[in-house]
Amino acid sequence: MFEKKNVEKILYGGDYNPEQWPEDVWQEDMRLLKQAGMDIVTLNVFSWALLQSSEEEYHFEELDKIMELVQDHGMKVCMATSTAVHPAWMARKYPDVLRVDFEGRKRKFGGRANSCPNSPTYRKYSRILAGKLAKRYRDYDNIVAWHISNEYSGACYCENCEKNFRLWLQKKYHTLDNLNQSWNTAFWGHTFYDWEEIVAPDMRSEHFAEDRTYFQPISLDYRRFMSDSMLECYTLEYDAIKEVIPDAEITTNLMDFYKTLDYFRWAKKMDFVSWDCYPENGQPYARTSMAHDLMRGLKGGQSFALMEQTPTVSNWLPYNALKRPGVMRLLSYQAVAHGADTVMFFQMRQSAGACEKFHGAVIGHAGTPETRVFKEIAALGKELKTLGASTLGMRTRSKIAMLFDWDNWWGIEFSAGPTKELDYMAEFTRYYSALRNKNYNVDIVSPEDSLEPYALVIAPVYYMVKGDNDERIRRFVRRGGTFLTTFFSGMVQENDLVTLGGYPGKLRDILGIWVEEEDALPPEQDNAFCYRGKTYPARILCDLLHTETAEQIDEKGYLSDFYQGFPVLTRNRMGEGCAYFVATSSGDDFYRDFLRDLCDECHISPVLTTPEGVEVTSRCREEDGKEILFVLNHNERPETITLPRDCTDLLAGIQIPAGEVTLEGYDVKILSFQTSEA
Amino acid sequence: MFEKKNVEKILYGGDYNPEQWPEDVWQEDMRLLKQAGMDIVTLNVFSWALLQSSEEEYHFEELDKIMELVQDHGMKVCMATSTAVHPAWMARKYPDVLRVDFEGRKRKFGGRANSCPNSPTYRKYSRILAGKLAKRYRDYDNIVAWHISNEYSGACYCENCEKNFRLWLQKKYHTLDNLNQSWNTAFWGHTFYDWEEIVAPDMRSEHFAEDRTYFQPISLDYRRFMSDSMLECYTLEYDAIKEVIPDAEITTNLMDFYKTLDYFRWAKKMDFVSWDCYPENGQPYARTSMAHDLMRGLKGGQSFALMEQTPTVSNWLPYNALKRPGVMRLLSYQAVAHGADTVMFFQMRQSAGACEKFHGAVIGHAGTPETRVFKEIAALGKELKTLGASTLGMRTRSKIAMLFDWDNWWGIEFSAGPTKELDYMAEFTRYYSALRNKNYNVDIVSPEDSLEPYALVIAPVYYMVKGDNDERIRRFVRRGGTFLTTFFSGMVQENDLVTLGGYPGKLRDILGIWVEEEDALPPEQDNAFCYRGKTYPARILCDLLHTETAEQIDEKGYLSDFYQGFPVLTRNRMGEGCAYFVATSSGDDFYRDFLRDLCDECHISPVLTTPEGVEVTSRCREEDGKEILFVLNHNERPETITLPRDCTDLLAGIQIPAGEVTLEGYDVKILSFQTSEA
Amino acid sequence: MFEKKNVEKILYGGDYNPEQWPEDVWQEDMRLLKQAGMDIVTLNVFSWALLQSSEEEYHFEELDKIMELVQDHGMKVCMATSTAVHPAWMARKYPDVLRVDFEGRKRKFGGRANSCPNSPTYRKYSRILAGKLAKRYRDYDNIVAWHISNEYSGACYCENCEKNFRLWLQKKYHTLDNLNQSWNTAFWGHTFYDWEEIVAPDMRSEHFAEDRTYFQPISLDYRRFMSDSMLECYTLEYDAIKEVIPDAEITTNLMDFYKTLDYFRWAKKMDFVSWDCYPENGQPYARTSMAHDLMRGLKGGQSFALMEQTPTVSNWLPYNALKRPGVMRLLSYQAVAHGADTVMFFQMRQSAGACEKFHGAVIGHAGTPETRVFKEIAALGKELKTLGASTLGMRTRSKIAMLFDWDNWWGIEFSAGPTKELDYMAEFTRYYSALRNKNYNVDIVSPEDSLEPYALVIAPVYYMVKGDNDERIRRFVRRGGTFLTTFFSGMVQENDLVTLGGYPGKLRDILGIWVEEEDALPPEQDNAFCYRGKTYPARILCDLLHTETAEQIDEKGYLSDFYQGFPVLTRNRMGEGCAYFVATSSGDDFYRDFLRDLCDECHISPVLTTPEGVEVTSRCREEDGKEILFVLNHNERPETITLPRDCTDLLAGIQIPAGEVTLEGYDVKILSFQTSEA
Repeated sequence: MFEKKNVEKILYGGDYNPEQWPEDVWQEDMRLLKQAGMDIVTLNVFSWALLQSSEEEYHFEELDKIMELVQDHGMKVCMATSTAVHPAWMARKYPDVLRVDFEGRKRKFGGRANSCPNSPTYRKYSRILAGKLAKRYRDYDNIVAWHISNEYSGACYCENCEKNFRLWLQKKYHTLDNLNQSWNTAFWGHTFYDWEEIVAPDMRSEHFAEDRTYFQPISLDYRRFMSDSMLECYTLEYDAIKEVIPDAEITTNLMDFYKTLDYFRWAKKMDFVSWDCYPENGQPYARTSMAHDLMRGLKGGQSFALMEQTPTVSNWLPYNALKRPGVMRLLSYQAVAHGADTVMFFQMRQSAGACEKFHGAVIGHAGTPETRVFKEIAALGKELKTLGASTLGMRTRSKIAMLFDWDNWWGIEFSAGPTKELDYMAEFTRYYSALRNKNYNVDIVSPEDSLEPYALVIAPVYYMVKGDNDERIRRFVRRGGTFLTTFFSGMVQENDLVTLGGYPGKLRDILGIWVEEEDALPPEQDNAFCYRGKTYPARILCDLLHTETAEQIDEKGYLSDFYQGFPVLTRNRMGEGCAYFVATSSGDDFYRDFLRDLCDECHISPVLTTPEGVEVTSRCREEDGKEILFVLNHNERPETITLPRDCTDLLAGIQIPAGEVTLEGYDVKILSFQTSEA
Repeated sequence: MFEKKNVEKILYGGDYNPEQWPEDVWQEDMRLLKQAGMDIVTLNVFSWALLQSSEEEYHFEELDKIMELVQDHGMKVCMATSTAVHPAWMARKYPDVLRVDFEGRKRKFGGRANSCPNSPTYRKYSRILAGKLAKRYRDYDNIVAWHISNEYSGACYCENCEKNFRLWLQKKYHTLDNLNQSWNTAFWGHTFYDWEEIVAPDMRSEHFAEDRTYFQPISLDYRRFMSDSMLECYTLEYDAIKEVIPDAEITTNLMDFYKTLDYFRWAKKMDFVSWDCYPENGQPYARTSMAHDLMRGLKGGQSFALMEQTPTVSNWLPYNALKRPGVMRLLSYQAVAHGADTVMFFQMRQSAGACEKFHGAVIGHAGTPETRVFKEIAALGKELKTLGASTLGMRTRSKIAMLFDWDNWWGIEFSAGPTKELDYMAEFTRYYSALRNKNYNVDIVSPEDSLEPYALVIAPVYYMVKGDNDERIRRFVRRGGTFLTTFFSGMVQENDLVTLGGYPGKLRDILGIWVEEEDALPPEQDNAFCYRGKTYPARILCDLLHTETAEQIDEKGYLSDFYQGFPVLTRNRMGEGCAYFVATSSGDDFYRDFLRDLCDECHISPVLTTPEGVEVTSRCREEDGKEILFVLNHNERPETITLPRDCTDLLAGIQIPAGEVTLEGYDVKILSFQTSEA
Repeated sequence: MFEKKNVEKILYGGDYNPEQWPEDVWQEDMRLLKQAGMDIVTLNVFSWALLQSSEEEYHFEELDKIMELVQDHGMKVCMATSTAVHPAWMARKYPDVLRVDFEGRKRKFGGRANSCPNSPTYRKYSRILAGKLAKRYRDYDNIVAWHISNEYSGACYCENCEKNFRLWLQKKYHTLDNLNQSWNTAFWGHTFYDWEEIVAPDMRSEHFAEDRTYFQPISLDYRRFMSDSMLECYTLEYDAIKEVIPDAEITTNLMDFYKTLDYFRWAKKMDFVSWDCYPENGQPYARTSMAHDLMRGLKGGQSFALMEQTPTVSNWLPYNALKRPGVMRLLSYQAVAHGADTVMFFQMRQSAGACEKFHGAVIGHAGTPETRVFKEIAALGKELKTLGASTLGMRTRSKIAMLFDWDNWWGIEFSAGPTKELDYMAEFTRYYSALRNKNYNVDIVSPEDSLEPYALVIAPVYYMVKGDNDERIRRFVRRGGTFLTTFFSGMVQENDLVTLGGYPGKLRDILGIWVEEEDALPPEQDNAFCYRGKTYPARILCDLLHTETAEQIDEKGYLSDFYQGFPVLTRNRMGEGCAYFVATSSGDDFYRDFLRDLCDECHISPVLTTPEGVEVTSRCREEDGKEILFVLNHNERPETITLPRDCTDLLAGIQIPAGEVTLEGYDVKILSFQTSEA
């Protein structure tokens, strides 16, 4: 990332909106940002209406001035294309840019992320604007990245979308016969005889709630289509820039596990991944790590940009607590620990009006650097200079992959039955957190990605097995890999049609089991099972399975109810490897104990063993055999860890011998080792 | 039911959708259904789009094949008309078939039960299809029943409905003066001067929630109109079939106590009643019995069809628990115990795709008979053959009637005040359950039905007293009957206008009381009263009444608050009989104790006295003096009952002497007696 | 109020709708109302459809008869203009009278308060009707007041409103540049180039919930515009009446703290204030007092009319409990105690149909005076005659003002951040109740009102400081006043743009503090602080402040978290006075203790010290030096108070010596003193 852009340290800065301020404020801004140790600003995120005042008139003069100002102060630029909000005049003149919402309401001008992704007007003018920006600012060599639009999100259900949906379907299914088969339209008399009969699935047609549909295959394809439609908008701008600046580094800022866009498909069109990290109050740290690991996984382990985080408070949470002293620094390094090569904030100067005015900023409404927040930011700025290039471009080495798939997410949650408690993210998080809390490095990859590098592959609630993905797992296991999946897996193929012949469908031979029935438990009701002498709860869904070639590895099966004795944990040997099955959802203790045993079996070690709340990750560089450990104390209290070897404390700039080291509450150590392999 | 159809045992089978499957699956289906002991399939429920591909083209070839197949395998057919989902092409060509929903949104194609009941297009083509089916399949003598549409439901608020509503009103009120009077339109300046000024009451006009209206009389008439509109659709198809096949037995499948359709009006147009029984997880068994008793009551005690139940799981509940081993059999017999002459399932083969794919089926996705579910089904199939015709057409003898009325239900719940806790179904259920839990046979009848056969008539929360219904009760009491009603009764006449002169209005002389005020209690607040030495809670609503000719039969009236001492229970003698009044809502203990005493007074005995959770009903045949007792152990544990006389155990095929008999958990005994009367 | 109308006692009566009844009922009504001691009826509230049957035809004959009837019985009239519901024919012929709701749905005829305030048709015909009524009934000297429309409420988002909104904005901002600046439209690319680009902010544009907007300045102005639009409708009718009857006393009935209308602006156009008092079950009495004090404050202390209250039950509450014996009387006198000169009810005769049929009335459905409710009403009628003119026109003397501001209310709750728990009414109520519960007289005034009369001015959560309002406070303090405000104050100016330079903005020098940060606490989390040796909770929001010229007056600052030790309570001396700041939200104990100390410091005494639940207020008349104490026992149990001086018990008509006096549960004493000042 930014290899060709002369970047020699972690970029530090963020969103800057001088267009909201009179020019006399700009100089003061520069002074303060330099004082804070910043070296990059993201410009032009929401300026379309200022840049283009009518169909023909463009005004780049103010942006020119800003670019001069920023360049004069030696700052780098992440250049946004401004297309996340169309101008009000455009909405008035060309209502096709306005979305129709899920309820079927034609929207009016307002908000943001408000453009119909299939609007011809939007596509035309957003592409033109991106091209114009590229041409005008191509010669600024301080532009290190281009930032298309902003936080793509939402959906549209207008007639243009409906028309393009039909074209998308024709491209996918070719014939209506094929579509009728693939969607099982004989059910409930849905046979289509003309493409024009197909309508967008919303509250006026197939849905009875945002995530509740009468016809999963239709809704599933609409999700895919809508993600693709926005990606097409992105691609139009991407191509317009690349045409002018072939070596531009282009991205758009992603948003955590954002349900409605399939980021694995998006990442293919992004030169690097960037994202906006806004953990909620009290969010377990492993959940944040999980998002970072996803971002790293989207482009095969390549480092990514932390594009936005708040220096102190958000404004959109129910209760916007201040980040405690030290926490902004801790979370910044947590991003770096998982693969980020930038630390950037929303926002440089706090807006005076409209809905984000109470969102934290580097320069607050008081306008003074004499604030706790500014001082912490400036201290971090100084530290990042010390750190220099030492972590840039380093990779994370992991023997564990977790398979994540948007189609699977959509498919599970569109399902009617067996239980509304079934939550893909929650199940995925249980497994991930158990590993992360014990400091195992984990890669999050798509089922399409190569499984070669891994010893252990975990695919919780792997409901939808698409294409030859089962065959790729089969091959992985045969060659010695360990695969783990759970209840409600292997149920359907890519169109949400059940794989007939007995669950878990295409995974049946790999797992060596047959799931005859599935029992949904209401939240107040648990079953239980034993594993290595301890009893754990069984919750949410209990698969009732028969082993075929697998062996049962829990001691007594379910402990109660009519399926008492049915196996809960099984292992199936296949070729050189084996496949595990967990038939139910359990508690944190179980995942911790079971995954520790599994890792041991697979000869996978944690990066370091630490007290609870102290996170450790590693990044390394093959070329020079350097390995860096990031030790993050997420606890308010001091914690002591034990270092196995001598190392360099990069932030303190001192050598530390093997042995005990204490970190203050919320403190961070970045420790450099020479790896034995190098 | 089916008398002329050569049916000699309880029909066993259910919904079958071969049109969703390739033909090679059909033979396997037949093999498995025969293996399961099945003898009937419901065909063609959702095939309109397959049968009619355009305005002119019909394709019956596949249905012909299916009919041949089924006939060749000696199975009977319940023939559906497929009109619960209009084809997509029709929605595109004739948007009048699409509903406008309660929010005022014009719907698009999707879901089911989606046709406007006042659409000229829908009415035309649904009638034509029913007629065509009748003509084509009239000679199949294995068709035992016709099944019009499917689960009529919902409502429409489009312009066609609005126009027909005005016509419906003109027919009812003749003049606007009359309508203005009947609706009390002088209130809030609602006087109408032209029929065209009247609009459908929805969220755009009189409503502020589905069940909350500013103008009860308008909303009440719209409910009636909407129920009638769908009934007209049904009737159009009914007549089209009867024209071709005069002796056809025609039904549509009802849905429990379904609020928006007045099933008493519908049943008049049905040759027999059928319904779909889907108890929720943990639903008390008496609640299910209550629905069965309603279905029997809809046509004066005639036996009915259990048209659908799930063999194992539903898919639309929040938590879809498996039916435990034995429970499917138990619930099947529970239906028979209350008057069903069929045991039918949704569905024969589990769909591979769309929203019911995880709904249980006789043949699951695994496709094998080697499942717990299939085995239980096959065992029941065998048992039903043993049982033969022994229960067919038997009647239930009951001295107790409970009055249920849809207008009353709508009227109570449209009311603004006195408390949102007032829930007609809940109050009705309290009384019914107290009787059912003690094994009293109960008939559920309409206020229009004859009260002659009964000794005790109970009408909980009899808010709306229509036409001469009070006079019919008066006559019943004078001739020696016992009548019981409660708080919030006699308030209004049929248009929800208050009967002036003092509550309970037209029931005042019958009850011999005057209710001066009504106090609503929030859920956290109880009052109390004493009856025969025990104290019971008073909840929800407390009527403050003065006895006129009645006597107080509770000991001290309310025990607290400023109306301490006001009577809670009263009895009024009138002619040979008497009328009871219960001034508040109480707890289960009270209903159990009070109704037991009342039954004793009326010389009504339970069918049998059993441990809690063991349900007993009886059915009998006047012609041969046979009486059959159905003993249903709803408990998981074994229970012992005491038989008063010798009898025959029909399932076991053995004689049992009077005395103790033990039933396993979930077990059923069907015991035949020769009645003393015969 | 009513000075020129020959009113010599508290007017007693209320809403009367004879048009809903046949004429033979009218005579009986008169008889019963006289028997109840009533002397005023409000007529014609919902009769538009009856008065005007088409565009040209008016029918006043029935109203003429009613006016005759009422006059013949010596009753006074409050004459309503009937314009709260347009006729159905008008909605059909001129759909512009129908609103478009917040969801963007065009409404149809139904409900009430349903007319678009910017409908040309509505404005035209409502004005004509008011004029016609004035002309026809100008000579009735028993009309003491005119009552325009009824409970103005709601909002509209139609095209006419949108057009008028643009005109309203042009009048306010003159240029788009000015508007773009004032709304900070550079944020999120919202720059407008043409007035026509501005749309109404609703769910189709800027809002994502009723009170949640992406653009506060737009939504705020729309609220102001909508309040003004309805006020214009009112004013059109007002002027039409005044043109005919220059000395008419004109009002409209307000509704408590009604969020969407700025009653301070409305009151300027009202000859006297009137309102409808419907406390919810269990509402603390101080909350009701607060609404009365607002009503008195709206017109600078002038007495007001209690236009509506229920004699017994409401019908629209979740649980409509009966008013206990004595409570109707108690609440009637509570109104008088706070400044009411009338006691009026909704309604005289209970409707027979539609949604208010179960709302209590003087004459219930039974039609008899032999009810508890009627008897209590008649007893009060008798008492009010005894009381005569003694309280009429008296003023309330208070040294404490609380500043209430609708713009502030809207601004706070439109804010995104810092916490959704921030509730202006709740914070305001905490301060008011602490004072009221200790029998301090309090005036509720607008920030525009004169602060001269007061020693203590309290402005809780004074978020938005408009125009020169800070300067008015500064002057008040300098001259010796004591000012108190709280966390989240001084944040923004009138368009919700932040006052830069450090919170609390324009109040910073007055308070002598700088608030650096604000921490939002979730509901389950408290901080704490000490004041005069006691510990109190800190909740919701904690301001982290630095004293500048202020001194800290709590002992240790916050007791925990990283801002432990930061001041919670500060006092700043300025000129002769001082300004207090409370940095967080606390518990009732704190407000009680702290405000007691503050009042002591300001030499403000309570009217009387009484047991909890016994409310005392005073009203006085400068002219004759009379002071009246109203003692209201809100407890069910008797309470004893101590009178400091001899006085006259006006209801009993006896002298009472200084010393102990006992009041029965819910009892009231009205005690007359000669003030020492007189």
